[in-house]
Amino acid sequence: MKSSMDINCDMGESFGNWNMGDDTGMMPRITTANVACGFHASDPLTMLETVKLAKAHKVEVGSHPGLPDLLGFGRRAMNITPEDAHAYVVYQTGALQAALKVNDMRLHHIKPHGAFYSLLRTEESLAEAVADAIAELSDTPMLYWPAPTDAAMPTAAKNKGIRVVGEIYPDLIYAPDGSLILQRAKHATDTEFAAAQVKRFVETSKVEANDGSLIELDAESICIHGDGPNATEVGDAVNKMLKDIGCSVTSVMA
Amino acid sequence: MKSSMDINCDMGESFGNWNMGDDTGMMPRITTANVACGFHASDPLTMLETVKLAKAHKVEVGSHPGLPDLLGFGRRAMNITPEDAHAYVVYQTGALQAALKVNDMRLHHIKPHGAFYSLLRTEESLAEAVADAIAELSDTPMLYWPAPTDAAMPTAAKNKGIRVVGEIYPDLIYAPDGSLILQRAKHATDTEFAAAQVKRFVETSKVEANDGSLIELDAESICIHGDGPNATEVGDAVNKMLKDIGCSVTSVMA
Amino acid sequence: MKSSMDINCDMGESFGNWNMGDDTGMMPRITTANVACGFHASDPLTMLETVKLAKAHKVEVGSHPGLPDLLGFGRRAMNITPEDAHAYVVYQTGALQAALKVNDMRLHHIKPHGAFYSLLRTEESLAEAVADAIAELSDTPMLYWPAPTDAAMPTAAKNKGIRVVGEIYPDLIYAPDGSLILQRAKHATDTEFAAAQVKRFVETSKVEANDGSLIELDAESICIHGDGPNATEVGDAVNKMLKDIGCSVTSVMA
Amino acid sequence: MKSSMDINCDMGESFGNWNMGDDTGMMPRITTANVACGFHASDPLTMLETVKLAKAHKVEVGSHPGLPDLLGFGRRAMNITPEDAHAYVVYQTGALQAALKVNDMRLHHIKPHGAFYSLLRTEESLAEAVADAIAELSDTPMLYWPAPTDAAMPTAAKNKGIRVVGEIYPDLIYAPDGSLILQRAKHATDTEFAAAQVKRFVETSKVEANDGSLIELDAESICIHGDGPNATEVGDAVNKMLKDIGCSVTSVMA
Repeated sequence: MKSSMDINCDMGESFGNWNMGDDTGMMPRITTANVACGFHASDPLTMLETVKLAKAHKVEVGSHPGLPDLLGFGRRAMNITPEDAHAYVVYQTGALQAALKVNDMRLHHIKPHGAFYSLLRTEESLAEAVADAIAELSDTPMLYWPAPTDAAMPTAAKNKGIRVVGEIYPDLIYAPDGSLILQRAKHATDTEFAAAQVKRFVETSKVEANDGSLIELDAESICIHGDGPNATEVGDAVNKMLKDIGCSVTSVMA
Repeated sequence: MKSSMDINCDMGESFGNWNMGDDTGMMPRITTANVACGFHASDPLTMLETVKLAKAHKVEVGSHPGLPDLLGFGRRAMNITPEDAHAYVVYQTGALQAALKVNDMRLHHIKPHGAFYSLLRTEESLAEAVADAIAELSDTPMLYWPAPTDAAMPTAAKNKGIRVVGEIYPDLIYAPDGSLILQRAKHATDTEFAAAQVKRFVETSKVEANDGSLIELDAESICIHGDGPNATEVGDAVNKMLKDIGCSVTSVMA
Repeated sequence: MKSSMDINCDMGESFGNWNMGDDTGMMPRITTANVACGFHASDPLTMLETVKLAKAHKVEVGSHPGLPDLLGFGRRAMNITPEDAHAYVVYQTGALQAALKVNDMRLHHIKPHGAFYSLLRTEESLAEAVADAIAELSDTPMLYWPAPTDAAMPTAAKNKGIRVVGEIYPDLIYAPDGSLILQRAKHATDTEFAAAQVKRFVETSKVEANDGSLIELDAESICIHGDGPNATEVGDAVNKMLKDIGCSVTSVMA
Repeated sequence: MKSSMDINCDMGESFGNWNMGDDTGMMPRITTANVACGFHASDPLTMLETVKLAKAHKVEVGSHPGLPDLLGFGRRAMNITPEDAHAYVVYQTGALQAALKVNDMRLHHIKPHGAFYSLLRTEESLAEAVADAIAELSDTPMLYWPAPTDAAMPTAAKNKGIRVVGEIYPDLIYAPDGSLILQRAKHATDTEFAAAQVKRFVETSKVEANDGSLIELDAESICIHGDGPNATEVGDAVNKMLKDIGCSVTSVMA
């Protein structure tokens, strides 16, 4: 059984006058925040406020860089070059690092968002370029990535000595090959399902796929979606389950 | 007579497919570059390329943050709050600091652009907020500002222990109170006028105003506009004059 | 007593993945919609969906052009030229007219948004430019404007033969000079206050100012804010009051 | 031999303070302009100025809608939906139609730009959606498309009764299947090659492919790139050749 798990959540996805997610509600329920950096969501003020909120709750902060597509929330694949990919991570992560420095904090990790993540699963040249950026920007570089971490991006990261932290998703259903079955509609998450998926994983390092098979995954973090209608309840259910089975909740140390 | 002067120039003002300025031509003729950070001009790739070019020419790099108005090139006053001003400097400068880190360089200074500069001349609450950002982001904070440096922004900077570097403009005409008479049209600069204005300043610490009076200014840097039709000729004329009168050309040390 | 009143509401202020306002809830409660056009809010798809929703409820549609400041929701004054003002109205209104044409509808009116509205209250040269745009774009040009309609914009509009439709705001408090006291915080509106303000106006053409004085206003439309927490209740209260006192609810005819 | 040919050129691709293309130089040398609409290039003021310039030269104006990617100049494929494609054409073309209305002109045609064009070559669902938009927006709908016009977009257009105008490119090399071999670098165009390609086409309705084979194409317009270093010379060479061989230069009538 795992003695400790990290809980991460995407944060700071409001933009200007538009709100998204319940950052205030989620921050006390997590140990690590992935903060949007202005390309697919967020803005300079939102980033500073999100970092401040994270600090108040002793939550570690990573950058959550996306494609330059505010209108599409970074969820539409774009045909970018490796030079673009590198530059976009440098720019966005640098902007967040400054927000952290202002709050006497340091960058914890990098986790690509949406369609940028999808591109980095398979495009090796983009993955190499992003791995370069991660290694260049942080003295203790870390990549967060959904387990199994055998895609192009985590592979490129490991090859450059970047620590890769696998994640499981308590609210998503796994296919037999370990891939996640995405459900875009923001319906309420079954908190019992989420807690049970976490329990099984912590106790056995396995999740159950939608065909009943068990898949072993290498993960140190649990990613909770903060934009669902009952996100804080999912957070509570996961935290309670971890406490009940004696697994501590702490952020991953670099 | 001054034994040394810095020469600075706004750089990296291209955006995507649109070019602006002759960065390749100007970089060998200056010692310090003010690099746009994506709000009024530039983009992540342009910033990295501009920093790389600066490094190749041993040119120091400062951030040139602007208002979030790409369409207006940051030249239109906007009614922003001190929190906005602080956040905009943090975001833009952080993005540039990451581009510098990737190139093993460090931020040299901060110089506000266009209408942001104009607002900071008079708005004390905005100036305080920007001074905070400068002090927070750099261990050796420096502000570049057109002499005379008695406006709201340099005053706030000095009060927080930030070094303020005054600039003179060889191609612009001074009013008797030391203020600059801006000419927007991109006509060719009279290189003899520019060289003579620099010569007088280096030898006497004074510039001649448009009424013939002499104004004493406190400046360590000469700002050359890089977007004029004969910008490199102006750069050559200023460099040659400095050499002729025995004034070395070096960047300002923190 | 007035026999008929129009009810208008700002609509289509979502942007991409971010929602704002309860358009579905409000549309059945109004007769005229002011649709955002992509500069301060909205986007091409949101505009088409909003127009379609309006059509389904037989609601007339006007354009609600704003300053090009998505980050600031068009609420920050910007130093634009008359040429800019003209071009911004042409561009945004034209985009909406196409969305209307696709739905076999026609532009009903134009109502400037936020800081653009504020600039147009006092800046005569901007007001002239916008009046030109309104007259050029519509065969039956109409301007919606908060009563009293003696500001620069409605004056310029009247001078060019544009019909000006005054509005009253049931949820806002009036100063003795007829100006509105804006309250930015999105607290719930007192529905009784709103209904009473409407009742008084319909019966007497007057509103009560915050010093107890009565101000006569020239208005044919009631503007309800759609982003308040109880916006639909305000809509219901106003509609019920109008019905109770025998005032029909219909859009203004060109 | 063809008795008449149209000459078209992409126009209005400046953005804010950044210039692109020699619109003033090209406008007297063409009969039809494809005007960018603010998504990949241009802005409200540039559009109005471009339309005014076209009117002064009796040049017909079509819309040149692109993907919402100013940073990438609309040259990067994005994973958009048919609803997006429809909405983007409606929005951009509507904005241009308003600029035309202000100048007492009417929309002549629609020509998709860059990566939007590339997507529409093969994606039938996107092509259907764009064809709908074209048919909805214009009483005399026309699509400009590089010959051969057998791609998804012109096919969908023809099926909806939209007139499709084929184009040839004097400065590009054709593959044996009639597809264009794109050369991105902005080198000078060989004006003799361009004039000879036009001459052959006008006289024989054929172009010579890069393997020496002759390809018959159905085209009524010649597209000249306005951003090359010798664009006006190409324009002159093409116009002179057309005059020499007795082919008049007039825009396509709806």
